[in-house]
Amino acid sequence: MLLEKNARLVFAGDSVTDVGRNQPVAEGTLFDMLGKGYPQLISGWLNAFYPELNLYICNAGTSGNTSRDLLRRWDSEILDKAPTWVSIMIGINDIWRQIDSPAQPSGHVLPDEFRDNVAKMIEKTLAAGARIILWTPSFIESNMNDAMAAMAKQYGDICAELAQAHSLLFIDTNKKWERILASGHHPEWVSWDRVHPNNIGHTVMAKAFLDTIGFDYTRM
Amino acid sequence: MLLEKNARLVFAGDSVTDVGRNQPVAEGTLFDMLGKGYPQLISGWLNAFYPELNLYICNAGTSGNTSRDLLRRWDSEILDKAPTWVSIMIGINDIWRQIDSPAQPSGHVLPDEFRDNVAKMIEKTLAAGARIILWTPSFIESNMNDAMAAMAKQYGDICAELAQAHSLLFIDTNKKWERILASGHHPEWVSWDRVHPNNIGHTVMAKAFLDTIGFDYTRM
Amino acid sequence: MLLEKNARLVFAGDSVTDVGRNQPVAEGTLFDMLGKGYPQLISGWLNAFYPELNLYICNAGTSGNTSRDLLRRWDSEILDKAPTWVSIMIGINDIWRQIDSPAQPSGHVLPDEFRDNVAKMIEKTLAAGARIILWTPSFIESNMNDAMAAMAKQYGDICAELAQAHSLLFIDTNKKWERILASGHHPEWVSWDRVHPNNIGHTVMAKAFLDTIGFDYTRM
Amino acid sequence: MLLEKNARLVFAGDSVTDVGRNQPVAEGTLFDMLGKGYPQLISGWLNAFYPELNLYICNAGTSGNTSRDLLRRWDSEILDKAPTWVSIMIGINDIWRQIDSPAQPSGHVLPDEFRDNVAKMIEKTLAAGARIILWTPSFIESNMNDAMAAMAKQYGDICAELAQAHSLLFIDTNKKWERILASGHHPEWVSWDRVHPNNIGHTVMAKAFLDTIGFDYTRM
Amino acid sequence: MLLEKNARLVFAGDSVTDVGRNQPVAEGTLFDMLGKGYPQLISGWLNAFYPELNLYICNAGTSGNTSRDLLRRWDSEILDKAPTWVSIMIGINDIWRQIDSPAQPSGHVLPDEFRDNVAKMIEKTLAAGARIILWTPSFIESNMNDAMAAMAKQYGDICAELAQAHSLLFIDTNKKWERILASGHHPEWVSWDRVHPNNIGHTVMAKAFLDTIGFDYTRM
Amino acid sequence: MLLEKNARLVFAGDSVTDVGRNQPVAEGTLFDMLGKGYPQLISGWLNAFYPELNLYICNAGTSGNTSRDLLRRWDSEILDKAPTWVSIMIGINDIWRQIDSPAQPSGHVLPDEFRDNVAKMIEKTLAAGARIILWTPSFIESNMNDAMAAMAKQYGDICAELAQAHSLLFIDTNKKWERILASGHHPEWVSWDRVHPNNIGHTVMAKAFLDTIGFDYTRM
Amino acid sequence: MLLEKNARLVFAGDSVTDVGRNQPVAEGTLFDMLGKGYPQLISGWLNAFYPELNLYICNAGTSGNTSRDLLRRWDSEILDKAPTWVSIMIGINDIWRQIDSPAQPSGHVLPDEFRDNVAKMIEKTLAAGARIILWTPSFIESNMNDAMAAMAKQYGDICAELAQAHSLLFIDTNKKWERILASGHHPEWVSWDRVHPNNIGHTVMAKAFLDTIGFDYTRM
Amino acid sequence: MLLEKNARLVFAGDSVTDVGRNQPVAEGTLFDMLGKGYPQLISGWLNAFYPELNLYICNAGTSGNTSRDLLRRWDSEILDKAPTWVSIMIGINDIWRQIDSPAQPSGHVLPDEFRDNVAKMIEKTLAAGARIILWTPSFIESNMNDAMAAMAKQYGDICAELAQAHSLLFIDTNKKWERILASGHHPEWVSWDRVHPNNIGHTVMAKAFLDTIGFDYTRM
Repeated sequence: MLLEKNARLVFAGDSVTDVGRNQPVAEGTLFDMLGKGYPQLISGWLNAFYPELNLYICNAGTSGNTSRDLLRRWDSEILDKAPTWVSIMIGINDIWRQIDSPAQPSGHVLPDEFRDNVAKMIEKTLAAGARIILWTPSFIESNMNDAMAAMAKQYGDICAELAQAHSLLFIDTNKKWERILASGHHPEWVSWDRVHPNNIGHTVMAKAFLDTIGFDYTRM
Repeated sequence: MLLEKNARLVFAGDSVTDVGRNQPVAEGTLFDMLGKGYPQLISGWLNAFYPELNLYICNAGTSGNTSRDLLRRWDSEILDKAPTWVSIMIGINDIWRQIDSPAQPSGHVLPDEFRDNVAKMIEKTLAAGARIILWTPSFIESNMNDAMAAMAKQYGDICAELAQAHSLLFIDTNKKWERILASGHHPEWVSWDRVHPNNIGHTVMAKAFLDTIGFDYTRM
Repeated sequence: MLLEKNARLVFAGDSVTDVGRNQPVAEGTLFDMLGKGYPQLISGWLNAFYPELNLYICNAGTSGNTSRDLLRRWDSEILDKAPTWVSIMIGINDIWRQIDSPAQPSGHVLPDEFRDNVAKMIEKTLAAGARIILWTPSFIESNMNDAMAAMAKQYGDICAELAQAHSLLFIDTNKKWERILASGHHPEWVSWDRVHPNNIGHTVMAKAFLDTIGFDYTRM
Repeated sequence: MLLEKNARLVFAGDSVTDVGRNQPVAEGTLFDMLGKGYPQLISGWLNAFYPELNLYICNAGTSGNTSRDLLRRWDSEILDKAPTWVSIMIGINDIWRQIDSPAQPSGHVLPDEFRDNVAKMIEKTLAAGARIILWTPSFIESNMNDAMAAMAKQYGDICAELAQAHSLLFIDTNKKWERILASGHHPEWVSWDRVHPNNIGHTVMAKAFLDTIGFDYTRM
Repeated sequence: MLLEKNARLVFAGDSVTDVGRNQPVAEGTLFDMLGKGYPQLISGWLNAFYPELNLYICNAGTSGNTSRDLLRRWDSEILDKAPTWVSIMIGINDIWRQIDSPAQPSGHVLPDEFRDNVAKMIEKTLAAGARIILWTPSFIESNMNDAMAAMAKQYGDICAELAQAHSLLFIDTNKKWERILASGHHPEWVSWDRVHPNNIGHTVMAKAFLDTIGFDYTRM
Repeated sequence: MLLEKNARLVFAGDSVTDVGRNQPVAEGTLFDMLGKGYPQLISGWLNAFYPELNLYICNAGTSGNTSRDLLRRWDSEILDKAPTWVSIMIGINDIWRQIDSPAQPSGHVLPDEFRDNVAKMIEKTLAAGARIILWTPSFIESNMNDAMAAMAKQYGDICAELAQAHSLLFIDTNKKWERILASGHHPEWVSWDRVHPNNIGHTVMAKAFLDTIGFDYTRM
Repeated sequence: MLLEKNARLVFAGDSVTDVGRNQPVAEGTLFDMLGKGYPQLISGWLNAFYPELNLYICNAGTSGNTSRDLLRRWDSEILDKAPTWVSIMIGINDIWRQIDSPAQPSGHVLPDEFRDNVAKMIEKTLAAGARIILWTPSFIESNMNDAMAAMAKQYGDICAELAQAHSLLFIDTNKKWERILASGHHPEWVSWDRVHPNNIGHTVMAKAFLDTIGFDYTRM
Repeated sequence: MLLEKNARLVFAGDSVTDVGRNQPVAEGTLFDMLGKGYPQLISGWLNAFYPELNLYICNAGTSGNTSRDLLRRWDSEILDKAPTWVSIMIGINDIWRQIDSPAQPSGHVLPDEFRDNVAKMIEKTLAAGARIILWTPSFIESNMNDAMAAMAKQYGDICAELAQAHSLLFIDTNKKWERILASGHHPEWVSWDRVHPNNIGHTVMAKAFLDTIGFDYTRM
């Protein structure tokens, strides 16, 4: 298991991470403090089976955030938690606003700006001495002719490049939906709008994270 | 994995199972339909990693139920779901009312009645052709001189006997808290009243269930 | 214009028709009485530009209805309004529950039952002396490899056959989305879940209806 | 069609325009963002049938505004949207407060001030390079002996003069009610207080606007 | 003063009488028990200046009632109060629904039925030994070419005939608005929809009633 | 009638005057704008029967105010309305806090301060050119041995002196309850706490005011 | 101490007893289960200092009850609790409705009926083998010329007679206010309406009860 | 009785003291102003039986406070009340956060800081001329092997030392639970989380306070 004793883990992101987390700060073990999404599920598994690690876990996702919004609050809401680990999942709103609000370009974040925004988050975080798990933004769709799926692929590739360039732990979120979709289930089984997963989808994401950091499932 | 394709799994219980589930019927994959407790967590893991099984999962826990209350609704709210699997966790209210409401004996369910009530649930369920996972009622306390802990032990032993007599799958819930308490954490870390677990406690219970039915964690 | 003086027009359907209509009966000209969807838009245009026709318009859509549910209330909630015209748009829930709730088959309505249900509605309505506008159930997706789109096509073809067999006025709803999607817009521009249209989508549907009954746009 | 690709259209006005629009800014395509009145109806028709124009539409009406109030926020809430088109419908509260609150003269806006206020809006807007559609304030009454109807006529004439002087597109709102009232319907059919139209009245207004900008109804 | 010691006075009517009265029975002296309209005002004046009479006063108006609706509940909600005096003001909804809902004729009450309905109320009431004050239905409009004003005049004349035929105390409500309208005020000063008076209008009505029963204003 | 055309009448006071008035300013003729107490009743009678006077009426009572509190807001909330008439009823909270909160002396306003406070209000108001109607604070009790009744008498006498010294119109509120109490009714018939009158009590006060300013009850 | 081990104590009464108790049954030790009045205070003292007695305590007061209402539910809501002790405080509403609602005589309970009602409660209770503590109805007023105080005295005397005739434990509630009123405090210090005591008044009542049953204050 | 005439008593503390008190200041005799805990109970007994003392009582407890938080507001919320007596019960959150939130050390207050914080409160208070009653923080548990009970003992000992050093009145709260626990009752009878007492527990605390200040129970 990669996490050290007294590790401080912060989840940065948008509504896929937020899912109703406590405001203004989401930490601790009361129900719904961390929201209903993957950060809470991960907190449950880590605390339940590695109680001796005494982990600090914080959900700093904010609904509606683009990478531009997230970068703006990086110092005051992510780094100020003195994290030793930061999980970053961002970008779907950079994409979505181009798709559902094409006439409001001030809200669009194009690929170049996205790359710059995420790169700055990475640099600031590494400079602060924390390790990073970087996710691709998530879109639950197998049809690669779909414009939003294609764009999600494009932004995901940028994440992959950045992860490689900085040797980060990396989760290709979109790949995680493949098994479910391959089993014959439709994206609507996991998410009505293909962006916000239900409990099934968040469990897929939680396990992807646990696997990435080397969780030992033989623990009881 | 013990669960078969198209299995129908029903969770029977009290507030430890209920945790805000949908009323009057809690089934499906929308957030909070199954409540915030171990049934929802289990549903997430089973559906996410065995999507091909097409599992029906229902939370039929009702807050405040004693074994007497649960037996009364066994036909109309558990067996009417045509389960092929039933999870039974009941008894803490049988105990708790003796502890916190000693002057209201009409609400007390003593050990003999408890044994009878659970035995009847088992018999009805087996007669209906379903398999059973039986849990002991949960009390998060390591001090065995505590009257409520002692009573939880006594009722738990009755469950163990019944499980053995009917060759049921069995989970000794109270044993599951041992590692956490042994790690130096206090029961208040997992539950303020030692009865209702927080997210950490429900994750402990969810994994106990998954382990019992042979969940394969190498799936992705 | 096909509608006669004192015509009585009833819209039957599911949540795509309901859109928050008044309960239990939705008639009259107060805001939101007819909901926010195409029935209200159509009521606006017909009353505004054919005020001399004195039209009775009722929204009898009910969220969540499958064709099975709608058939069950056909006499008491549609024919009891003594309609001279009935608009029928039903079936997306027949499909959707197969897609998003595969483990709850009791809620699924398969093609044969769908055909029977709609046929019975048609026969009852014609027997009551009313004329019918039949719509296909709507799914806003251009990828025909999508399982739900394919199923929508299949159920839509059943509607087309029934319309032809009974010489009904017919609207192929799914075809109406083509221009929007061809213009480069993504389905998320019109509907986040591809089932419930936003104001743009309901306007597309309203004009389809107005065109079908011969609305004269040169009126002022 | 007069609107150009990427046109930016802002509706300025009072409660007849507002009708429950989103606060503080009303733009985009979610239900009720633009309120329930003519701006939302117009947005539906333009976006549905000219999707390739990629139109930005904003409802900047505010309930209770007189022309004095509207002028005060012209820079910060209308011109700051960088409109290429501005729809202006204002004045009924200038009139109404003289009628229903005669003892509170501080809220009255007399004809000369009204003319000045609207003239300033026009000049600022033209200076900003946007085109204007100017409406008369609306009062749904055919009895010209009615004091409020007479005053609405007087303020409407001021609008007509201003439109002519600046060669603006112009809609004589009050004339639009004539057909409905001529058909034998009473003003209460369209509006209980003769000021705020119901869905029928807003559809009359929406079509007046669409006709004015050359909407092509043969589009599908 | 016509009212005797221990008189029991019941106000029958529609929303003009109801004005938010207590449900299901409105009697007593708590604020708002009798609603905010003329029955409460009258109760205040009678109780304040004739405290020795010990009057029972009940508001039995119900919003939306036509004369048909009111007749239906005459025995169970008016006569069951054992009144010695009954005030009857009804009919504006008989009229209004013809005006604002012409396409829903089932809600229309035409003059002949209106006359029959009121006549039956009168006969039942006199047979029960109570005295009656009969009002015309109220419409605040001086333009007699207005269709609704004309209809209000027609229904009012029916009331006048019935009052004369049965020698009832009679109030011509519409005549009461004349002074206000003659003073140069517009109907919107007293009522935005010309049907529901504001506090000024209800005071006009209250004094009309007090004058009719011989209230002595020199009392202190 | 003393009030002149375009008179501006402001009611200053505490909760006996406030009675749920609109915040922050209570003027105009909508229901409840002026609260449910005597200011609204007076507004009804004055506007209904002297419509040609075009009266401005404002309720500036604030619940909980002592004379100290009222004096503090005299310029900003009473004189800023440019009144030509001011009604002042204050002092019951000066008394009541001594009675019900004897251990919180910071809230007590003793007779000397009360006299000074009211005197200052009078002087400021006369200096602003307005006329004054001064009331005694109201306590509905006939037992003069009651400490609170005795204190109300004492503060009332101060008001009487001030009225005489400045030749003000004056209403001895407490005297107004005499007839009701003499008729055999108990204070609880008019007010449960003997401070806040019900509708009967407010009508007594309204008529006292109307009589004082010479209202002509023969008007219709 | 008179109460025996496992005693069952039920408090019967009206709003003075109810004070927001749990519905439909008020028993147990959660905050506010027993309401905020003297039953909760008594429960606190008895359970805190006689924990070994294991007392069952139930608040069966219902707001608004007269003795007529209370008698009607005596079997189903008091005796059905199998009490060994019953506290009865009733009658203030029998009195109050004569005072504040003189024109609604159907709600009045006169002295003879009151005596009969309470006598029947006593007889039924003794027949069921329980002991009784009887209180006089409470009115916080020292002026014996006050009509309501005089009536409270009259009804209280009836209670005293009944207590003596049946040798019941008896509390003269009204006498308990004497010390407070003698100390110079006004009734408004204890109760704004002289009927419903505040926390001070309920403590007076609680101690009266504890003294009556022989509570030992030297316990710790 | 130690309290003097016009004494000013302030209760400082955390949620055990707060219990829903009024915000921002809790003083006076209305229900729930002082919350539902021991301060309100004490206020009831002192005011009811020493009415001549005219006591000012204020609840200044704030939920969630540690000694660090309380010290921070000592001047502005405790000493600003000009107390002559201060009750201090603080420290359980200093302990609890170490137990239930071990990974958030910024919220932990260790014994040395606790001692310093309380010492500063004492010194400031004595300097202001007020007397002090100091309580130990309360934990309802008899198992001294329990980590939180042990810590409560440790912090309680610090309080005892400070009380002795400054000759303060002192209440060993934890000792007060002994009789209840010795009677065979379980901590859950008094508190589900062993920190927040129910009505029984607050009564134990109230009497401990009353005994400490020499309350005379023979008063009536």
